[in-house]
Amino acid sequence: MSAVRNVLFIMCDQLRRDHLSCYGGRVPTPNLDALAARGVCFDEAYVQSGVCGPSRMSFYTGRYMSSHGATWNRVPLSVGEPTLGDYLRSGGGGVALAGKSHVMPDDEGLARFGIAPDSDRGVLLRAGGFAEIDRYDGHTPPGPESGYADWLRARGYASADPWSEFVIAAEDRGQVVSGWQMRNAHLPSRVQEVHSETAYMTDVALAWIAAQGESPWVLHLSYVKPHWPYLAPAPYHALFRDSDTGPFVRSPQDGTADEHPVLHAYRTHDECLSFGREDIARHVRPAYMGLVAQVDAHLGRVFRALEMSGRLGDTLIIFTADHGEFLGDRGLGEKELFYDEIVRVPLIVADPDGRADGTRGHHDPRFVEAIAVVPTVLDALGQNGVAHRSEGRSLLPLLRGETARAWRDCVFSELDYSYRRARVVLGRRASACRGFMVRTTEWKYVDWQGFRPQLFDVARDSLELNDLGAAAGFERIRSELRERLFEWLAGLSRRTTVSDAQVEARTDAHRRHGVHIGIW
Amino acid sequence: MSAVRNVLFIMCDQLRRDHLSCYGGRVPTPNLDALAARGVCFDEAYVQSGVCGPSRMSFYTGRYMSSHGATWNRVPLSVGEPTLGDYLRSGGGGVALAGKSHVMPDDEGLARFGIAPDSDRGVLLRAGGFAEIDRYDGHTPPGPESGYADWLRARGYASADPWSEFVIAAEDRGQVVSGWQMRNAHLPSRVQEVHSETAYMTDVALAWIAAQGESPWVLHLSYVKPHWPYLAPAPYHALFRDSDTGPFVRSPQDGTADEHPVLHAYRTHDECLSFGREDIARHVRPAYMGLVAQVDAHLGRVFRALEMSGRLGDTLIIFTADHGEFLGDRGLGEKELFYDEIVRVPLIVADPDGRADGTRGHHDPRFVEAIAVVPTVLDALGQNGVAHRSEGRSLLPLLRGETARAWRDCVFSELDYSYRRARVVLGRRASACRGFMVRTTEWKYVDWQGFRPQLFDVARDSLELNDLGAAAGFERIRSELRERLFEWLAGLSRRTTVSDAQVEARTDAHRRHGVHIGIW
Repeated sequence: MSAVRNVLFIMCDQLRRDHLSCYGGRVPTPNLDALAARGVCFDEAYVQSGVCGPSRMSFYTGRYMSSHGATWNRVPLSVGEPTLGDYLRSGGGGVALAGKSHVMPDDEGLARFGIAPDSDRGVLLRAGGFAEIDRYDGHTPPGPESGYADWLRARGYASADPWSEFVIAAEDRGQVVSGWQMRNAHLPSRVQEVHSETAYMTDVALAWIAAQGESPWVLHLSYVKPHWPYLAPAPYHALFRDSDTGPFVRSPQDGTADEHPVLHAYRTHDECLSFGREDIARHVRPAYMGLVAQVDAHLGRVFRALEMSGRLGDTLIIFTADHGEFLGDRGLGEKELFYDEIVRVPLIVADPDGRADGTRGHHDPRFVEAIAVVPTVLDALGQNGVAHRSEGRSLLPLLRGETARAWRDCVFSELDYSYRRARVVLGRRASACRGFMVRTTEWKYVDWQGFRPQLFDVARDSLELNDLGAAAGFERIRSELRERLFEWLAGLSRRTTVSDAQVEARTDAHRRHGVHIGIW
Repeated sequence: MSAVRNVLFIMCDQLRRDHLSCYGGRVPTPNLDALAARGVCFDEAYVQSGVCGPSRMSFYTGRYMSSHGATWNRVPLSVGEPTLGDYLRSGGGGVALAGKSHVMPDDEGLARFGIAPDSDRGVLLRAGGFAEIDRYDGHTPPGPESGYADWLRARGYASADPWSEFVIAAEDRGQVVSGWQMRNAHLPSRVQEVHSETAYMTDVALAWIAAQGESPWVLHLSYVKPHWPYLAPAPYHALFRDSDTGPFVRSPQDGTADEHPVLHAYRTHDECLSFGREDIARHVRPAYMGLVAQVDAHLGRVFRALEMSGRLGDTLIIFTADHGEFLGDRGLGEKELFYDEIVRVPLIVADPDGRADGTRGHHDPRFVEAIAVVPTVLDALGQNGVAHRSEGRSLLPLLRGETARAWRDCVFSELDYSYRRARVVLGRRASACRGFMVRTTEWKYVDWQGFRPQLFDVARDSLELNDLGAAAGFERIRSELRERLFEWLAGLSRRTTVSDAQVEARTDAHRRHGVHIGIW
């Protein structure tokens, strides 16, 4: 196999790691399993925040949430934050997007710099540095930045809004009903499978890759599924049954006064009120599983196309998710907080380089963070890193079996719940709703502003059932883990306008600048 | 007295608080004393870093060093960091600069946004938002952004570089000698006093203020003195003698293995090697004191002009310094580190508003930080604050005797010594040279990356002679103060693209955006 010329960076939205068969899950994912056999499955991969926006901005900037500042879904990514696209462009390339990025444009920032939103530069900055082939974030009907609505209409879905009327709609006893209502999750979507979101975006990606011919490329193929609404097209709507969904994670502390106040407040959210009912969770899980199986099937199309065109031999493939989904575990629904269901994600990396032959099919137990993606892509393409700005480390040494000196021994994740109802329930100011997680081999510790911490002995309590955040006898452990967070907070990347190498070259150099301070 | 229409924000460079007579110091400063009598002297005012660049960027952005990222003198202020000028311009005004700002332009940032450096926007961004009347940072000969060199030549100082040849030069037995050499500090500068840097910049400021007529204005008058070179024009060079300079601060720990490793490494710096000799310090201090007296004399001209034009009645005056100077205390010279000689600065604020009559002449013992200046200026001019970005609080409630609920009970300061020789001496990476200070009523605690902390019982040891950073019996105190730093680090302003008010208005609002997650 040859050197990396192309990069395919695939993301799913709201995909639980433990659902994939290559991670021991109940949904057969033969195509991801095959990718895992060609590459490395990272078993301890964590996102920098358990919610789309900040998680993705960490994937795209290579920086922790506290550094990039896009702390929740509706928070624009500052135009001052360079992304993967910027770094690649400085090397003469770029990154194309098919699907979801969740980048919120920083229009105030653009105005400050006098950049017209519809200028070439403005378009790129508003897109977070992606060249958008087809941008489609889900949640709301596809807009003009996506061809999906027109494409559907051309295929007979006659509607001003074919997404709402067909894609996320079903039919129940002659009535058109909405996929937003979880009661309809057992029904098939009104689109044919080949016209679903996942099918469409796969078509877009395959056409774009084919059009590149022999030119090198970097593509972010970013599926909105299995994200809400939980409604699958036939036959995926009926692929799984309640009995396939497995047991629920339950803790004796759930819902009691012993559980953490922030967790307790989250239970007031609609999705937790619904998913807190096991009958609802059992009703929805099969649809979710079907959506996962569907994504895998379309990834099979992608991988086969790459194989047939010879691109498997020179394309670095990264597969991951922006976060998971509770699906009724712990009586919770949706995402956020710091349980493994949410922040521990699948991460499969297949490196075509011959130096990676020795690790193919391996499961790597070392800790990896989402911010590793930017430096990994740059490293694979032979571009210089941006160590003073990007806070992650390239995974190539792990993939290529090079002994990485002192690899990381913990991971960090963050949450800002200021936009959530929980803030109001808890009576917090918008600036004081932060949580910080550190996960070591033995422990998971979460520090919450204004509340006691959470602590889980994950070595013995892998399901995180027993919160030791207030338990006697663990004071020293909590203190040590808080120390880890201190070191991390104190060490975040601050000086982004000058590189470390420049600092070192200029150390003690004032004489050369004609400044002769301190001489007798 | 009437409402505030104008703001005069005066800064000195490298001015020690304890030298001013209004702060009990040995240099008579009758004009600053008069300002203090009209306003409030803050006794516990601290800068966010004890070095020009980052300290000033905190004054100008209203943000901690870790937030604005300009961590040392040669580090550009990211164009993404709005400054006082930006905030004032958004209200239809602006801020003019006469003198030093130490803003390093972020030319990479400009290039990223396609902004020509010589365009109106580019000029303003490169100047950190100041409209530069006359920019002169000292250290090196005045450039084209200052009229000082031409002005000197027009007054008979015939030279391609009249600054080096006259302003910072002296004559010694017929030879022209340099003010950079401290051995010459007893000699008068070769410029007449009325042609000195301080005189010139005062003239520039007075002419500009006069030209504003009845239009409101905001001016940053920023003297480079008493900063190096330590050479005063006659008669100020001879105003003080060795016997006027007072005792030196000395600790039994100075220079011993008991002192902190970072402090120990600073002793290898040229200025400490020189100022470490008491004979040199005694030789230089009188010149420094003369420069301070000279600044005060010219401030007298400013205040008299304001009085005669009626501007004292509608101008908020702020006087402060970017940091102090060791002047041989502790065997150290120059700045940085966290001793009071450096980070505790003079801050006098005179508010013409009648509501401030009750506090005139007061010394206020409450803690104040440099980042208070931006919100104070905006508050005084009736402009909205920028609480999600600026991290300081307006001082107006303190000036106007309004009981401020829960005023701050500590202050923070930071240092990044990566550019300094100390880094090499200590064998540190450029990204791991950070120090963080918290000062409470009783304690000063400094946390250093990779080294033990420093701790001073400032309530009993106000000169900070006994470093308890490694002393037994103080574990609990150190731990508590480190907790304060943790809370501070965790609470720094991150989400700069959306205000807290916007977050609160959008809390739990996904329904309104057509996203119906979580319903049955």
